Amino acid sequence: MKKLVNDPDYVVDEMIEGYVKAFPQQIARVGKSGRALVSQAALDKEGKVGVVIGGGSGHEPAFMGYIGEGMADGVAVGNIFASPPPQPILEATEAVNKDVGMIYIYGNYAGDIMNFGMASDLADLEHDIHVHSIVVRDDVASAPASEKHKRRGIAGEFFITKVAGAASAKGDSVEEVVRKTTKANEWVRSMGVGLSPCSLPQTGQPSFHLEDNEMEIGLGHHGEPGIEKGPLATADEVTDRLVNDILADVELKNNDEVAVLVNGLGSTTHMELYIMFRRVEQRLSEIGIHIFKSYVGNYSTSLEMGGSSITIMKVDDELKECIQAPADCPMYAQV
Amino acid sequence: MKKLVNDPDYVVDEMIEGYVKAFPQQIARVGKSGRALVSQAALDKEGKVGVVIGGGSGHEPAFMGYIGEGMADGVAVGNIFASPPPQPILEATEAVNKDVGMIYIYGNYAGDIMNFGMASDLADLEHDIHVHSIVVRDDVASAPASEKHKRRGIAGEFFITKVAGAASAKGDSVEEVVRKTTKANEWVRSMGVGLSPCSLPQTGQPSFHLEDNEMEIGLGHHGEPGIEKGPLATADEVTDRLVNDILADVELKNNDEVAVLVNGLGSTTHMELYIMFRRVEQRLSEIGIHIFKSYVGNYSTSLEMGGSSITIMKVDDELKECIQAPADCPMYAQV
Repeated sequence: MKKLVNDPDYVVDEMIEGYVKAFPQQIARVGKSGRALVSQAALDKEGKVGVVIGGGSGHEPAFMGYIGEGMADGVAVGNIFASPPPQPILEATEAVNKDVGMIYIYGNYAGDIMNFGMASDLADLEHDIHVHSIVVRDDVASAPASEKHKRRGIAGEFFITKVAGAASAKGDSVEEVVRKTTKANEWVRSMGVGLSPCSLPQTGQPSFHLEDNEMEIGLGHHGEPGIEKGPLATADEVTDRLVNDILADVELKNNDEVAVLVNGLGSTTHMELYIMFRRVEQRLSEIGIHIFKSYVGNYSTSLEMGGSSITIMKVDDELKECIQAPADCPMYAQV
Repeated sequence: MKKLVNDPDYVVDEMIEGYVKAFPQQIARVGKSGRALVSQAALDKEGKVGVVIGGGSGHEPAFMGYIGEGMADGVAVGNIFASPPPQPILEATEAVNKDVGMIYIYGNYAGDIMNFGMASDLADLEHDIHVHSIVVRDDVASAPASEKHKRRGIAGEFFITKVAGAASAKGDSVEEVVRKTTKANEWVRSMGVGLSPCSLPQTGQPSFHLEDNEMEIGLGHHGEPGIEKGPLATADEVTDRLVNDILADVELKNNDEVAVLVNGLGSTTHMELYIMFRRVEQRLSEIGIHIFKSYVGNYSTSLEMGGSSITIMKVDDELKECIQAPADCPMYAQV
C-alpha cells in the first residue's frame, strides 16, 4: 500500500514534528523523549486535575489530537500500534501536574497496562503524584459480558476522555473526575466491522486478509480477529448487527438518553458513516431511546483501514453536562 | 471496492437523512427537492448576507458539512461528483434570504456554473434576490496562469467559505462580503497528488488506474488527469513539488503571512498529512513566510481516494480576522 512518507523508521517523529509546528499556540512538546505532548492551556491552569492519555500511533485523531481545553492535558505517543513506554507518560504527567490529582485514560491492552502502570508507580515514587487509572474496555465483540476485564478499548475512549476533560475543566475534585469518568466507562459500549486492512509503513504488508466481498464483524482496531467473517452485508444489516450486540450487553430502557459515535476506521467515507448513523437512529428511536448528542466521523482510526464502529453511551444529567461542554483541541473542537 | 451502503441509488438521500438526524438542532432540510439544507442559526439572524454553497456529494465534509455559524448558511447537495440542479440551490437561497444580499460559492465546473447560474437567474426573476457568484479556481495544476479561468476548484474552497461566512457573521454588507471573498479567491492556491482511486457505489469501478508504485501529480478531486504520472516519491519530495508549483504561481514575499491547509482525499492518513505539513512549514519558513493558521485533515475528500492536496492562501489583517473567527458546523468547529 502506497504512503506519503519519508523514512519509515521516523514516521511518528515526523508526524509529531508537523503537529507541533501546525499548532504552536495550542501544543508543546515536553521532556526528553520527544513523545510527550501537552496542551498549552493546561500549563497555565492552577488547581486543575491532570488528565493524561496515550497509546500507539496510527489511530489519529486519537490520541494526540485530543489534548486541549476541555479534553486531555497531556498525551504520550507510542510507535504505530504500540504502547508508549513509561518515560513519555511520566514526562506528560510531570508537566501537567498541579498537585490536585491525576488521571490516566488508556485502552485495555497488555502494553498500555504495563507502561501506564509503571509510569503511575514512578510518578508516585519519584514525584509524589498519585494517579488514578481508567482502563477503557468498550468493545463488546472482544470478550463476553462474563469476561469484561478482557475487553479491548476502541473508539469509546473518545467519550471517556471527553467526560474526564470536561469534569476537570469544570474544576471538579479528582474524586469527582474519577467518579464521573468511571461511570462513563461503565456505560459505554462499542462494536466494529472491518472491510479492508491497513499496512504499516515499515512493512507495507496488509494487516489482515479479507476476500473482495467479505467483511469481519467485531474486528479490533489493530486488526485483531473479530467474531465472524462473512459476505459483505448492507449498511442497515451491518448496523443492525452492531446495534443488536451492543443493546444485548447494556441496560437501556424507554426514555433513556445516549451519546452516539459512528466512527470511521480510516478509508470508510463520511457518506457510509452517515448512512449507518441513519440506521442507528432508526433503531434507537424504535425502542424509545433518545440520542442526546451525535458524533459521526473519523474519531479513532486504524491508519487507512476500511470499516467502522458504533459507540453508544448512556448519559444522565452529569454525563450530559460533560458531553455537551465546549472543547478546543487541534483535531477536535466543540462550541 | 467494498462499501457500507444499502441501495446504491439512494446513498446521497440516506446520507442526508442521517446527517439531518444527527444534528437536528443545527441543520434543517428545506424545500421539496430533499437536497437543500440550511443552518438553523442562519434562519434566525435578520440582516445577514446569505451564503449558499454546494456541489457534488462524495467530498464530505465539503460541502454539506460546512453550514453553520461563521460558515455557509445553506447548501445544495448534488449526486456523487455531480452538480446539484437549480431547484435545491434556489430552495436554499429562498430559505436563508434576508433581503440584504446573497453570495454563491462553488467550484469552477461546467455543471456548477450552469446550475448555480440558472438558480441565480431564477432567484432574481422570481424572488427579486440578486446573487453574487464566487467561482473558486484554486488548482494551479489544472491550467497555466495564462488560463486561470479554466482552473478547477478544489480544497481551497474551504478557505473561501470561511472568509465569506466570517464576514457575513460579522454583519458586513454584501459589498464587503463580496470584496473580502473575492480577495481570498484571488490569493488562494492549491495543488494535489493522487495515489489510489475511489469508486462510485453504483459502479464499484475504480475512478482511474495507477500502478502499485505510481502517483499522479496534479490529479483533480474527481480523478481528472493531472500533470504527470511517475513513481511514488517521498513525502518531502512530493510536498516540495506541490509547494514549488504553488509558489511559482503566487506572489509571496519575505514576512508575508499565509493560511495553510494540508488536505486528505479520503484514505490518506493523518500521519502522512502531518508529515507533509512538516515539510510545508520548513519550506515556507526558509523563505520567511509565516504560517498564520494551519489546517490539517480531511476537509475536502474524493470518497476513499488516496492522496492529498496543499492549499496556501496569503492573508492580510482582514482575511486573518475572517480565518481566525469562530465557526460552528456539524463537521467543523473552531473556537
